[in-house]
Amino acid sequence: MSLDAFVERTTPWVAERFEAIRAMSADGPGVTREAYSATESAVLDYLVAQGEALGMQAQTDAAGNVWLTLKGRDATKPALVAGSHVDSVPEGGNYDGLAGVLAALTCVYTWQQTGFVPARDFRVLMLRGEESSFYGKAYMGSLALTGQLTPAHLALKHRSGEGTLGDALTRCGVVIEKVTEGQPVVDLSQLAAFFELHIEQGPMLEKGGRARVGVVTGIRGNIRHKRVKILGETAHSGAVDKAYRHDAVMAFAELVHTLEERWDALVRAGDDLVFTVGVVELPPTRAISVIPGEVTFSVDIRSLSTETIGVFHAMLQSEAHAIEQTRGVRFEWDEPIKTAPGLIDEAMQARLRIAAEAEGIPYETMPSGAGHDTAVMSAAGVPSAMIFVTNQNGSHNPHEAMRIDDFLLGVAVLRRALEDFDI
Amino acid sequence: MSLDAFVERTTPWVAERFEAIRAMSADGPGVTREAYSATESAVLDYLVAQGEALGMQAQTDAAGNVWLTLKGRDATKPALVAGSHVDSVPEGGNYDGLAGVLAALTCVYTWQQTGFVPARDFRVLMLRGEESSFYGKAYMGSLALTGQLTPAHLALKHRSGEGTLGDALTRCGVVIEKVTEGQPVVDLSQLAAFFELHIEQGPMLEKGGRARVGVVTGIRGNIRHKRVKILGETAHSGAVDKAYRHDAVMAFAELVHTLEERWDALVRAGDDLVFTVGVVELPPTRAISVIPGEVTFSVDIRSLSTETIGVFHAMLQSEAHAIEQTRGVRFEWDEPIKTAPGLIDEAMQARLRIAAEAEGIPYETMPSGAGHDTAVMSAAGVPSAMIFVTNQNGSHNPHEAMRIDDFLLGVAVLRRALEDFDI
Repeated sequence: MSLDAFVERTTPWVAERFEAIRAMSADGPGVTREAYSATESAVLDYLVAQGEALGMQAQTDAAGNVWLTLKGRDATKPALVAGSHVDSVPEGGNYDGLAGVLAALTCVYTWQQTGFVPARDFRVLMLRGEESSFYGKAYMGSLALTGQLTPAHLALKHRSGEGTLGDALTRCGVVIEKVTEGQPVVDLSQLAAFFELHIEQGPMLEKGGRARVGVVTGIRGNIRHKRVKILGETAHSGAVDKAYRHDAVMAFAELVHTLEERWDALVRAGDDLVFTVGVVELPPTRAISVIPGEVTFSVDIRSLSTETIGVFHAMLQSEAHAIEQTRGVRFEWDEPIKTAPGLIDEAMQARLRIAAEAEGIPYETMPSGAGHDTAVMSAAGVPSAMIFVTNQNGSHNPHEAMRIDDFLLGVAVLRRALEDFDI
Repeated sequence: MSLDAFVERTTPWVAERFEAIRAMSADGPGVTREAYSATESAVLDYLVAQGEALGMQAQTDAAGNVWLTLKGRDATKPALVAGSHVDSVPEGGNYDGLAGVLAALTCVYTWQQTGFVPARDFRVLMLRGEESSFYGKAYMGSLALTGQLTPAHLALKHRSGEGTLGDALTRCGVVIEKVTEGQPVVDLSQLAAFFELHIEQGPMLEKGGRARVGVVTGIRGNIRHKRVKILGETAHSGAVDKAYRHDAVMAFAELVHTLEERWDALVRAGDDLVFTVGVVELPPTRAISVIPGEVTFSVDIRSLSTETIGVFHAMLQSEAHAIEQTRGVRFEWDEPIKTAPGLIDEAMQARLRIAAEAEGIPYETMPSGAGHDTAVMSAAGVPSAMIFVTNQNGSHNPHEAMRIDDFLLGVAVLRRALEDFDI
């Protein structure tokens, strides 16, 4: 089937399913599919019905995740898996997570028309509970699947203050003693590969150029400071000359601007790095005529490379130290929080690149700035890879605006990679 | 009398009066002498008693300010005047204002011992209502004195929300129709000069060097923006590469740091200039993992020179414009609020410098960053000048810590300038 024919035949089927699920979970202009909620269960039920209509068999694992299996020519070989999560953030968009599940199902819908039978079983994995919004913990479904959920996780309170993650899992029929045994709830050695299609959560594809899909090269790790404080000296804005000031805002501005220049140099030299100061706060006594004696700010440094993160973090500290000397201010540091980069299997990335080239679909290779279930699966030893699809307006908000045309380019890459897996 | 003998003889008398007034207006660790309050009236009564004990005659003007007159050799000549205000900010220090009143009285105390009789009448002016804390308006006493108080000022609400400035004036016996006629309530042509001693409200004398007193060269004017907004683009901190960001905090940091460098260059070139960003605010949606799309900040630019203020304000705008171009952000400006610099009579400054040199007292010439009654008197045509006295811990807080030794150096300069006025 040509790409044009594929798009033309598949669009109505896909659009209908996206809209049916949007209607099931509508919440204001967006959707809410709370992790381990009745809405999440209802959406899973609907998706199971779609899979069964395509001749697939449904199965719920001990962690509550749902699998749909299409029999392949050789059921003894480890299966190919594709999917993503079905939950959303509160008042989020319809595509974050769901796009990956429907992409996997769309492959089967297409194979039904072309008569393609995969060389081995193909399983659509529909994960629960990826978003951290409700329990403060992300990747609950894939962590439970891979034996990494702990009793401490189960004790996490719902953000309403009532009930725990463990209570919610129990309501979904999960035997919580089973998922905290520290063992995967499925035999991971029987999973040959995991592919996740996901909307891009940034604007790189939309703003970048011709490519509408991305092959993810890794998931950026990070180092974060929640609260760094600069302590200077509060004084009257008119009554202190420049040489006698210890202005915390001026110190902050120098630090951030100098680091931005260092960041620019590293990026020009080819390093992967992003740097964000998302929180800046002055004390309640701030006023137009007061030299600020205190600034508190956050730091978020991300890269695919642990080394680059370390280099930039050291620059942050040495610039701060230099500023302490020249300005007579003092920095107070909280403990940095570190997350290692998520590695994506090189051979799996190559499969996606080759599939895109075979389909004649332009693509970008790009890091993922946010974490994903793919990183959990990959760390658990399942060869995994990710496809990004262009998306307008970011994610985690009601205005996610993935176009079906772009989605289907991503599906075409995924389908080709699955079809060619055993060639 | 030698300087040492003067300090030795005068210290107990001065200290006793400062402490008596502190006790009358104590409020926690500081003092509160609210403008046009019963406390302010009681302090004035106490000061009148001190003046009468020194042979002075008290008189209250139609604006509620109190004058103590010491007869000179020729009562037909315009009088010499010295003084300041008796009110304070809430929970303020004991010296802001009061030091200038007691300095003037201390001159008379000393003359009583030395037998000096001034060539013309000497009047101690004790102003009410200089601080803006309670009615949002500063210099009420001197504005009323010089015929510049308006019905709009009288309608200003007390910060408690109850009562107006007009009500408070009425309670102090002021005939409010009289003070809003647009005419000075005393014949200003009968005032030959006004001297105000005041604590320095910054740390320049304390940190600067040997001099403990300052001769004020002018009162810095200013241009202020209460709220300037930078609008960029909010996005996920991990998912957007450097080239695609429109980070409002990075734009802010560049603006402030670049302007600080421009400021430094102007100061090195000899210009008088201070620059403060006292308020920085991010929207409530700020978060560690969110590229900030919005920053609001204040600007306060002060100088003795209207031209320098204008030059630096133009730099602010042109740097902001350049940043708009390079970063794809947008600035929103509120209307700037302008206050012209307060000029201090050159000949009056020279009288203070000559007096300090005659007494062998080291002094600094320095601008005042804050406004003072001196500027009102000067603008109304009374030749006026100011003496600053070293003060620790700034002003408008309970920790003002002027030393009596430093105060008496300032008094010695004032006394000498008064004694030599007709030589």
